Amino acid sequence: MGRFDELKERVYRCNMEIPKRGLALYTWGNVSAYDRALGAVAIKPSGVSYDALKSSDIVVMDIDGNVLEGALNPSSDTKTHLVLYRNFSSVGGIVHTHSTYAVGWAQSCQPLTIYGTTHADHLVHDVPCTAVMDDAKISGDYEEETGNQILECFRNLSFEEIEMVLVACHGPFTWGATPEKAIYNAVVLEELAKMAVITRTVRADTPSLKKTLRDKHYFRKHGANAYYGQAR
Amino acid sequence: MGRFDELKERVYRCNMEIPKRGLALYTWGNVSAYDRALGAVAIKPSGVSYDALKSSDIVVMDIDGNVLEGALNPSSDTKTHLVLYRNFSSVGGIVHTHSTYAVGWAQSCQPLTIYGTTHADHLVHDVPCTAVMDDAKISGDYEEETGNQILECFRNLSFEEIEMVLVACHGPFTWGATPEKAIYNAVVLEELAKMAVITRTVRADTPSLKKTLRDKHYFRKHGANAYYGQAR
Amino acid sequence: MGRFDELKERVYRCNMEIPKRGLALYTWGNVSAYDRALGAVAIKPSGVSYDALKSSDIVVMDIDGNVLEGALNPSSDTKTHLVLYRNFSSVGGIVHTHSTYAVGWAQSCQPLTIYGTTHADHLVHDVPCTAVMDDAKISGDYEEETGNQILECFRNLSFEEIEMVLVACHGPFTWGATPEKAIYNAVVLEELAKMAVITRTVRADTPSLKKTLRDKHYFRKHGANAYYGQAR
Amino acid sequence: MGRFDELKERVYRCNMEIPKRGLALYTWGNVSAYDRALGAVAIKPSGVSYDALKSSDIVVMDIDGNVLEGALNPSSDTKTHLVLYRNFSSVGGIVHTHSTYAVGWAQSCQPLTIYGTTHADHLVHDVPCTAVMDDAKISGDYEEETGNQILECFRNLSFEEIEMVLVACHGPFTWGATPEKAIYNAVVLEELAKMAVITRTVRADTPSLKKTLRDKHYFRKHGANAYYGQAR
Repeated sequence: MGRFDELKERVYRCNMEIPKRGLALYTWGNVSAYDRALGAVAIKPSGVSYDALKSSDIVVMDIDGNVLEGALNPSSDTKTHLVLYRNFSSVGGIVHTHSTYAVGWAQSCQPLTIYGTTHADHLVHDVPCTAVMDDAKISGDYEEETGNQILECFRNLSFEEIEMVLVACHGPFTWGATPEKAIYNAVVLEELAKMAVITRTVRADTPSLKKTLRDKHYFRKHGANAYYGQAR
Repeated sequence: MGRFDELKERVYRCNMEIPKRGLALYTWGNVSAYDRALGAVAIKPSGVSYDALKSSDIVVMDIDGNVLEGALNPSSDTKTHLVLYRNFSSVGGIVHTHSTYAVGWAQSCQPLTIYGTTHADHLVHDVPCTAVMDDAKISGDYEEETGNQILECFRNLSFEEIEMVLVACHGPFTWGATPEKAIYNAVVLEELAKMAVITRTVRADTPSLKKTLRDKHYFRKHGANAYYGQAR
Repeated sequence: MGRFDELKERVYRCNMEIPKRGLALYTWGNVSAYDRALGAVAIKPSGVSYDALKSSDIVVMDIDGNVLEGALNPSSDTKTHLVLYRNFSSVGGIVHTHSTYAVGWAQSCQPLTIYGTTHADHLVHDVPCTAVMDDAKISGDYEEETGNQILECFRNLSFEEIEMVLVACHGPFTWGATPEKAIYNAVVLEELAKMAVITRTVRADTPSLKKTLRDKHYFRKHGANAYYGQAR
Repeated sequence: MGRFDELKERVYRCNMEIPKRGLALYTWGNVSAYDRALGAVAIKPSGVSYDALKSSDIVVMDIDGNVLEGALNPSSDTKTHLVLYRNFSSVGGIVHTHSTYAVGWAQSCQPLTIYGTTHADHLVHDVPCTAVMDDAKISGDYEEETGNQILECFRNLSFEEIEMVLVACHGPFTWGATPEKAIYNAVVLEELAKMAVITRTVRADTPSLKKTLRDKHYFRKHGANAYYGQAR
């Protein structure tokens, strides 16, 4: 068994959550994982449909993007993933999809308002939306600059408290300590976007959730005083 | 066979309706039942996914929350369930979900308008929406206070005529004489919310259903003169 | 084999289209057929879920509602069906559902605007919406009066050209020469309602389809000069 | 094996994508292919449901519509397909559906705004919407004129860069070098329409995507400098 086989199998299984959870059509999404001990980033190959995808197709590279194993081209979004891994020190998995409601909201170039406790169970802020990329960057190294746009957006935000972002005019990126957590966050973001669209339709001027309720729900599930689940 | 086995199996089966009916993602919902003769409340354990859930995982406790059987932590919403069981004397089942349309509406902090006979087949009022909890209560015993918010909201309403509520900024709770009725009500509430969103989209100033039609539909199905179904 | 067995089996199969096509939850819909040669109306029993429904459960009655065969109570909407069969001379099947978009639109108490050719492939008018029933009728023979509301609504319309109606505040009824056509029309109406909601969302002041396009599409499929399909 | 068997099988399989992808109810869609070497256009027969459709039912004709093989009437939209094949020189497949969101938008008689990169991955313009057909054409050769409306709409547009159109008041037509590409484009258009409806709901005055971002995404996937996928 090869040294990357376990990592590739895991990334394969997380990629297969994309069609299972309805997060993207055809090839429009990708999951990667970064095993910092191995120094290996594994990611979906570019343009391969989920139906055809095999564990052995997963591309493995080092943190600079040099391919260590794999015969296929990696995802065209690879450089965005690498920028985030280099800067978000504890992140072990990243997901990019074109899920319908998250994209619909990202196209509005607005942050996703925190309207309720479903949102606050996962983060206490609006889901941030990056600035629209300026033309110099677009004509430069676009995928790397997409990563930089996200970094810029998180200059005063914690990537560990907010594990998701809307790239303006584009769509969602999510992450987490593991690729499984990153794909979970991709499902969460799509659901939060759908709920928020409904809330705006019902009442356009709905205020965002007050801080005390945000914190209450978040800290039920996160941090030293969490009391949700079985893990203690 | 243990004395709680039948109750646990029943609560297990009702919890499995949550994913089957599309009422919640991952672990975001729970069903409990209260067997008043046995003095036993059975509820889903906290943070266990429906895929992994087994009948033997169901936690049994007395009405004060002392565990009678079960190795896992009960749902983090347990105290809310217990408050309702203590005060809603004939209720035998309670459901909490994060179903998409009911949450979307609850986030608007408005009652769910009664627009038609589908609604009136089940209740003759708007589905009430609680007040937003004040900060003192949030920092107190939050889940118990969530129950108290519902009680406060029902001060002048009948919990037997209205078996559902929207907790402002949060989402739906439903109940009934049995856990099967409570889960039925959770499905109904999600559908009523979706229908009402459509009605508002079509015509923002649609009036609510007039009283005579409300009563006609409700009393076709409920009370001494009901003539719907086979049960007479 | 009983003289009504074929009719009952056919009505059973058409009722099972309701859950298959997602037209109603639980027991919220019913299909009937009228075999004018046999003098027999067959309809779903009241309050029986589609999961549990059997062909032998279908209730058979004469056109005045006297039961000819069947141990169960017929649908609580039976009198509405009978009024329509007595007055719509060529109708052989009727469907009532609580499909989500058709109900959402009916609750707005507006006719369903004809916006496009999908609509005109089936009828050249808005889908009419009845008046809201007055209180005297509601407190009278409600289900019979629901039929009368539909008749009143069709006073200047052809029930053979328009095989569907929205009952204000309530939901859709559809019909046709056969129960299979009636259930087809129920599916069509739900889809037309969903499409029209989208059109209104995109452009609130969208005009309705002009007459020449309505007629062109309708008469491609209907009447002496139809040229759609294989039936010539 | 007949000389058209492979073409018919291929067109059959593409037609079966319509129900699989949820692009149309009943018989409301059709796929054709044009094998220019064989001089043969193959298309779905009119009014045959996808459940009943067999490869042997596919109708084969020459570019003028003379039937070469097949016992059934071809799709009533055949003349529209033929007009496009005669004028769009490199097109090998055409799809017409009544998919819900694309129809909902087409009924608004507006082009489908390009709001984001999902759209720009496929085309750099709004999806054009034809003019509403004038009455003289409607009463003439309607299906041929539908093709002419599309040609008129593309007078200053490239059918190779924009492989989709909304026919005003009607619905989508898509095409491509192959029938597989055409059906892919039909799925894409439905998803773009749904995303755009969400974007308008969130923010009615959302601007369309700026040119630099349009071009960046399009040319990642198309043309000499494309770097998406495995095909180089």
